[in-house]
Amino acid sequence: MSFLQLFRKTKSNKQYDELTIKSTLLELLFFIVFLAVISIITLDMSGTSMFYMSSMIKKLFIERPFEVDNDVEITFGDICLIDDYWVYVNNVFLSGIYADVGRCDKDARTNMEYQKFTVLKENLLMGPPRLKQLKVRNDSCIIDEIFKRNFRECYGSYQHSLEDTLPFGPNNGTPWTYHTSEELKDMFLYGNLHIYAGGGYYLDISADSCKSESQIKELQDGGWITRGTRLVLLEFSLFNTNQNLFCIVKLIAEIPATGGIKTSFSIRTLKLLTFVNSQNYFLMICEITFLIMVCWYTMVEILELYSESWSYFKSVWNIVDMLIILISFGSFAFSVYRLKYIEHKFDEYMKFPNKYISLDVLAFCEEQYNNFIAICVFLVWIKIFKYVSFNKTMQQFCTTLKRCATDLLGFGFMFFVAFIAYAQLGYILFGTENENFRTFRDSLFTLLRTILGDFDYLAIEQANRILGPIFFITYIFIMFFVLLASVATNFPIE
Amino acid sequence: MSFLQLFRKTKSNKQYDELTIKSTLLELLFFIVFLAVISIITLDMSGTSMFYMSSMIKKLFIERPFEVDNDVEITFGDICLIDDYWVYVNNVFLSGIYADVGRCDKDARTNMEYQKFTVLKENLLMGPPRLKQLKVRNDSCIIDEIFKRNFRECYGSYQHSLEDTLPFGPNNGTPWTYHTSEELKDMFLYGNLHIYAGGGYYLDISADSCKSESQIKELQDGGWITRGTRLVLLEFSLFNTNQNLFCIVKLIAEIPATGGIKTSFSIRTLKLLTFVNSQNYFLMICEITFLIMVCWYTMVEILELYSESWSYFKSVWNIVDMLIILISFGSFAFSVYRLKYIEHKFDEYMKFPNKYISLDVLAFCEEQYNNFIAICVFLVWIKIFKYVSFNKTMQQFCTTLKRCATDLLGFGFMFFVAFIAYAQLGYILFGTENENFRTFRDSLFTLLRTILGDFDYLAIEQANRILGPIFFITYIFIMFFVLLASVATNFPIE
Amino acid sequence: MSFLQLFRKTKSNKQYDELTIKSTLLELLFFIVFLAVISIITLDMSGTSMFYMSSMIKKLFIERPFEVDNDVEITFGDICLIDDYWVYVNNVFLSGIYADVGRCDKDARTNMEYQKFTVLKENLLMGPPRLKQLKVRNDSCIIDEIFKRNFRECYGSYQHSLEDTLPFGPNNGTPWTYHTSEELKDMFLYGNLHIYAGGGYYLDISADSCKSESQIKELQDGGWITRGTRLVLLEFSLFNTNQNLFCIVKLIAEIPATGGIKTSFSIRTLKLLTFVNSQNYFLMICEITFLIMVCWYTMVEILELYSESWSYFKSVWNIVDMLIILISFGSFAFSVYRLKYIEHKFDEYMKFPNKYISLDVLAFCEEQYNNFIAICVFLVWIKIFKYVSFNKTMQQFCTTLKRCATDLLGFGFMFFVAFIAYAQLGYILFGTENENFRTFRDSLFTLLRTILGDFDYLAIEQANRILGPIFFITYIFIMFFVLLASVATNFPIE
Amino acid sequence: MSFLQLFRKTKSNKQYDELTIKSTLLELLFFIVFLAVISIITLDMSGTSMFYMSSMIKKLFIERPFEVDNDVEITFGDICLIDDYWVYVNNVFLSGIYADVGRCDKDARTNMEYQKFTVLKENLLMGPPRLKQLKVRNDSCIIDEIFKRNFRECYGSYQHSLEDTLPFGPNNGTPWTYHTSEELKDMFLYGNLHIYAGGGYYLDISADSCKSESQIKELQDGGWITRGTRLVLLEFSLFNTNQNLFCIVKLIAEIPATGGIKTSFSIRTLKLLTFVNSQNYFLMICEITFLIMVCWYTMVEILELYSESWSYFKSVWNIVDMLIILISFGSFAFSVYRLKYIEHKFDEYMKFPNKYISLDVLAFCEEQYNNFIAICVFLVWIKIFKYVSFNKTMQQFCTTLKRCATDLLGFGFMFFVAFIAYAQLGYILFGTENENFRTFRDSLFTLLRTILGDFDYLAIEQANRILGPIFFITYIFIMFFVLLASVATNFPIE
Repeated sequence: MSFLQLFRKTKSNKQYDELTIKSTLLELLFFIVFLAVISIITLDMSGTSMFYMSSMIKKLFIERPFEVDNDVEITFGDICLIDDYWVYVNNVFLSGIYADVGRCDKDARTNMEYQKFTVLKENLLMGPPRLKQLKVRNDSCIIDEIFKRNFRECYGSYQHSLEDTLPFGPNNGTPWTYHTSEELKDMFLYGNLHIYAGGGYYLDISADSCKSESQIKELQDGGWITRGTRLVLLEFSLFNTNQNLFCIVKLIAEIPATGGIKTSFSIRTLKLLTFVNSQNYFLMICEITFLIMVCWYTMVEILELYSESWSYFKSVWNIVDMLIILISFGSFAFSVYRLKYIEHKFDEYMKFPNKYISLDVLAFCEEQYNNFIAICVFLVWIKIFKYVSFNKTMQQFCTTLKRCATDLLGFGFMFFVAFIAYAQLGYILFGTENENFRTFRDSLFTLLRTILGDFDYLAIEQANRILGPIFFITYIFIMFFVLLASVATNFPIE
Repeated sequence: MSFLQLFRKTKSNKQYDELTIKSTLLELLFFIVFLAVISIITLDMSGTSMFYMSSMIKKLFIERPFEVDNDVEITFGDICLIDDYWVYVNNVFLSGIYADVGRCDKDARTNMEYQKFTVLKENLLMGPPRLKQLKVRNDSCIIDEIFKRNFRECYGSYQHSLEDTLPFGPNNGTPWTYHTSEELKDMFLYGNLHIYAGGGYYLDISADSCKSESQIKELQDGGWITRGTRLVLLEFSLFNTNQNLFCIVKLIAEIPATGGIKTSFSIRTLKLLTFVNSQNYFLMICEITFLIMVCWYTMVEILELYSESWSYFKSVWNIVDMLIILISFGSFAFSVYRLKYIEHKFDEYMKFPNKYISLDVLAFCEEQYNNFIAICVFLVWIKIFKYVSFNKTMQQFCTTLKRCATDLLGFGFMFFVAFIAYAQLGYILFGTENENFRTFRDSLFTLLRTILGDFDYLAIEQANRILGPIFFITYIFIMFFVLLASVATNFPIE
Repeated sequence: MSFLQLFRKTKSNKQYDELTIKSTLLELLFFIVFLAVISIITLDMSGTSMFYMSSMIKKLFIERPFEVDNDVEITFGDICLIDDYWVYVNNVFLSGIYADVGRCDKDARTNMEYQKFTVLKENLLMGPPRLKQLKVRNDSCIIDEIFKRNFRECYGSYQHSLEDTLPFGPNNGTPWTYHTSEELKDMFLYGNLHIYAGGGYYLDISADSCKSESQIKELQDGGWITRGTRLVLLEFSLFNTNQNLFCIVKLIAEIPATGGIKTSFSIRTLKLLTFVNSQNYFLMICEITFLIMVCWYTMVEILELYSESWSYFKSVWNIVDMLIILISFGSFAFSVYRLKYIEHKFDEYMKFPNKYISLDVLAFCEEQYNNFIAICVFLVWIKIFKYVSFNKTMQQFCTTLKRCATDLLGFGFMFFVAFIAYAQLGYILFGTENENFRTFRDSLFTLLRTILGDFDYLAIEQANRILGPIFFITYIFIMFFVLLASVATNFPIE
Repeated sequence: MSFLQLFRKTKSNKQYDELTIKSTLLELLFFIVFLAVISIITLDMSGTSMFYMSSMIKKLFIERPFEVDNDVEITFGDICLIDDYWVYVNNVFLSGIYADVGRCDKDARTNMEYQKFTVLKENLLMGPPRLKQLKVRNDSCIIDEIFKRNFRECYGSYQHSLEDTLPFGPNNGTPWTYHTSEELKDMFLYGNLHIYAGGGYYLDISADSCKSESQIKELQDGGWITRGTRLVLLEFSLFNTNQNLFCIVKLIAEIPATGGIKTSFSIRTLKLLTFVNSQNYFLMICEITFLIMVCWYTMVEILELYSESWSYFKSVWNIVDMLIILISFGSFAFSVYRLKYIEHKFDEYMKFPNKYISLDVLAFCEEQYNNFIAICVFLVWIKIFKYVSFNKTMQQFCTTLKRCATDLLGFGFMFFVAFIAYAQLGYILFGTENENFRTFRDSLFTLLRTILGDFDYLAIEQANRILGPIFFITYIFIMFFVLLASVATNFPIE
């Protein structure tokens, strides 16, 4: 039941029909305007300039090749030795950071301030980049009885409880002393292998490139990356005044307990301040319209909730309405909070330009906010189906659906069991060697993609010469057979 | 109603049947000859030599790797720093241009004329290549209140109205002075990020390679590419006497407001003079036949239009006929104009071989001309269906179609709404990081391609670890479900 | 009617039934043995060692990177300048040829014979490699009136009739004098752009690597590759004693009239002598069995032809039988001829080890022979359907097919017209820039592959920003709609 | 019949219904717990750390580029000359092995022990790496009469019976003397071309990198890789104490009789000791539960077998039960044996750290064990269908299936014959040049993948310019036609 219907109830019955049509039309009009306004606002939110920002940073720090020993060219993703990593830090990372101010030159003045630092000419470095590591303790795994005679050191996989928090090495600065995540104000980090806590041993890289080079050299020579190191993280934030964009870059190097380095990265670009665009007059009108409409919408829904009480929650569309309203209000609140937070952070940066600024919390919130907005718009679009549900085709479709629901569920269950069985089989058989079956979840998605025609048969065969092909063929046959049978049985076209 | 039927009307009724068959057969014959002639002419128009010209130029200027600092190899597409760009200009571009005459040699004579310049031995350089840039003004964006204390410079995204037209730098020549698009006779340019106007600061690169090297050096050292620069364009035209081909090359380097460089290119090869081929006798006969047929065709259609007046426009086939005739005449007119224009341009080039010649207008017209011709031929092919429409299968097909038209439309609408909703969701969720969802339009096409089995699941997962997979699975299920349901309900095979 | 049925006719009627079953079973047995024998022989014919031979040669000469000026690495396929080509010849080709004997060393003896030359240790070089070129005449294209004032040279696309046959350059040897294809005993060559005749200017590369280096240098400095050059070909043959394999390698560099170089290659490995394998006893029995069976088979078919006269040709299976027999006899004849031919060539090679030996004719015949054999085996397999045609399912299937044959043809025609129309549209719109639409034939196959889900949307969009996407979407919709409609209308599942 | 039904038989008839439900529910509960326990155990078995171990080793030894002569970069997979191989061994392999201890330094002490050797910091090298080769005899193939005059050496493809076992070269150590597979305790090896026996000529690479370099040099200069060499193998084992993982690495270089080198690799990571994880308490409980359940399960099945005797084997589910039990017991037995074996091997390693340790037998067993476990879990999952078989949908589905079984078989046969015919045709036509049709088996899978939309049309066209496209088109049409016809005829949706 929609909000314009509320008025209808007070009228007499004979005016009913005319009013129904009118109210439905008015409601539809309201809905269309609402949809238009919310679409304009959200489509403006994620412009292509954000994509280009991310992609330029990626080009500079991730895709740029560099030379390791023996004149061999690799990129960030190819790093597998700790020596490679240090070469990367020196040749790609520092070069990227100092590209606009020039690398170390003994004769030039060395009193640089981060306030003048830019990356790719246009992006201000918000405080120094930070190099951070997390270690695990020596006793972080249990050595088997057989080996205990010979081995005394054992560094397990990363777990927060196993973190090493003791100072080590020369112990003469932040790189050699543990700091908790409260001290660093960093949030947890999603890596490829684990979720890492926010603390660690860190080094804020100096604005003076000569000094930073010697800092890095010191860490490298002093064996900063030890056997227990499980994560080495380079993080920095950029701010682009032209477009009011923030970019939070994390260059992640995970060291599994099996050695080697698994690199990954996270480049999140945020448009934090939407009110200062050049086309802001039109947008502002939209936003105000949106605000008013949401208020009106809320009122209507409250009235409806009041009149219908619990039966209100029985309709799916009412719940959709509520979700839309809640997310809308949440986003207003967040917008205001965000503005304050940024202002605060920026003041801090202005006062102490050489102090590291963590925008992790902001980025996390912003991302959640963005997700909620996206879902909100999606729900508004989906609400269209509410207005076309009286359509004959739709009803016919729904009737067909209801009639064969149990059959569909039956086949769905069969499908699901076969799917899970194959996913687990694939995980056990190929998980050790084939990236697509690396985890149970990957295995599930790989099999889903196989149905859609996106598969890598040769990798399956390489992982298991005999069972691989059998797995593939039987899977294909069973899936297509079940799908076909299900379709054929469930759509008894009359 | 077709043109041979016109005669029928004057005859008595009993001769009707025989005449109908005759006229239909004659019409069909006319049509087949027409189709053959137009196919021969157009298939000749775009020979493979044009493809090879484009692809060789691409190989030489785009795909050729070059070394930047640290002995690292990149190609045109990998450029992301302004320094890289200058290395490219020096090592790839100038090398390509001077490949056949040799790079700067102090002892050799330096009085070169462009008339003797060739690229890849066979392609004459039509005047000097031009290096051009477009800048935006300092006040081209609004700095937020919070930042205003600290930042005074702001260079926004490119818009024509925000263009910087003031002289800058040493201000001692064309590279430092703005010229309008009227002065330069250049057309607008489609880039990846924006559409750029035709004006700008430019440098015509000297035929003397020693001089051009110092010119480029001067620009590089003088900071020609400033913070406000939004487009750096290298353009030149080639002419191949062997095949009478023109090739208009544009090497585009866009600098987004977020910094970095986004390179792209446009290599358009045109066959401007079709009458001078070696196999021209046969082709000439075809073209004359075509001319005569179009005239006859036109006459018939005019008679028909005269006899049927407004009801003429009710038949789709009549409109198709009219379009074909209009495009045909348009193409004749353009062919004649083109010949004159080229002759004029070439005379100009002969007189001032060191003056830059812009073929932009020609290329644009030629491309539109080409598009119209292509559509014309397509329409002629489609006209076949007119002659087979009495076929039983076709009628049955049409009947089926009409009966389920409303159902199809209903499902089409559902499909369309779900599609748009997902496209917007994808754009907001992944647009910042995934190239395939960069713009709303890209998002639409990406989702269309996903249905056809061409998707990149890993990139979606990388862009959003949690909502990415959910988006993908629900999309797949809903689309296939709706498609299946639509097919099953709409084709009630009796 | 099969061969065992012939006896039946002489018997009385009451023995008929029993005999029918017996004869059918005997015929089936004969057929199964025949199928087994022919499968064994042909599966042995193309062993994996042939694939590895081709792939190793490809790795060595095609995929091996080399450095051109500016320390940039490219491979054979990236060559686009004539200078690159000479670098390739020196650094990859000569290195590959001389890998086992060592490159030029002044102090070492220089009297090498090709008989001792091997490639990849195991493959004997059959005579010297040959470097050959084809040129076109200066007047091979017509210069337009406008340009005639300025240009006097014009070298058109390759055509046999336009070939330049005059001596040029220093005119002091085979590289500067034309030789006809009769003199060279070379066959025509399928290139990417044209079919080239067998004559040309050639150089047989010396066994003495010091000499060959100076020969190559002489050609390079003397401007051997002129503006008129349309093909530069490197060809040589290898023989592997271990496996009795011949490998005929052609490294093709085509120079279109638009300049640049389009490289391709042809590596054909032939197993010419099948009787000398180590497992030859079993194979020999198979071959003899095959010979006997073919004779018996022939006799039966002749008898049948005699008894049925013209009605014999009405049955498809009889024609299949005849084809099988003809191909079988043809292959016997060729096997014998081949052995003689090879022996003759080898004798020639033994006598004049430094003379170039052309195996082109042999390779061509062998390939045709191979194709015929392949088709023959395929026909034998297809003959199985003859024996299962009494099957109920098959009959039902055939009945269904016959009933909807006209409908299918109608839809097939619609499909075909739409397909051709789109192919021509694609060719005209994208042919200049997109490799997949380069020729009309490529365009056809690209559209076929698109239906199967193998397409490159981004390349279409890049070639035409506006019509590309429209082309793609309408094509997809029309094709799938026609397909669906065709299936739905034609399979009225009862 | 399930185990809880056994009790039912002793009860009176009227308690039957209630008991049936109870017993079925109990059985289901037992089954669910069993499924959960076995899933937990097996999902733990193959963790992602095993994948990362394999992938890091792969990155270091396989994907790492290296420079051969002419400053050209290639990787392990690009190796095609024997010289390349030696460069690989020196620059990549030895560098990887000695990365943590440093390459040869004359001044440093050279008395290294393998016990201190690590790869990627964390992985202990279990004894020295071994370089091994296999050769074939000179008379391993038959030279044809024509060539016998000129060639006396012939080295055929690898076969165990043709192995060369004579000492050769300086004959002063293991590299020049043949050792049988019994002596070396190595198992056979699956290569790309052949299966190789375990014996050969070998060199255990010294822990002293100076010494090992000279050893390798000696082999290279002494011509260790001869014309007869068919396999060069580098093998070593790593042990990771942190995760209790063994990694058995084999770097395979096969030399076909046609020359060149075909490289491949096998990196198998094993988790041999499951009882020592940090989360072992929960896992241990699971394993004990599993043990108890299997015993109970066994008992039930034995009782059932006893009561039903031969009719027991008629039910598919009973056979599945038996398989599950047998595999479970087998795995217990193997676990115990494995522990002992490893302990023994490790003791050996501790005593003689510089002696090569072959873990081949273990790896082979472990892999089989892993396969059996995977199949066991799959069977348990599939058993779910036993419990849902009373479902109405399933029954309907089965009925449909039975009714059209013969039709399906008929079409299946047609499909199969056409498939085989095309596979053989493809193998003969393209096998020499197209990797996907290299063997008959590859050809089969390639055609299967083609139906699923994963094909490489251009490679087919490149292999045979005329028959390739015809093959492709006819295959596509026939397959889709047969599939469609089969579906349309077999699912007569009522």
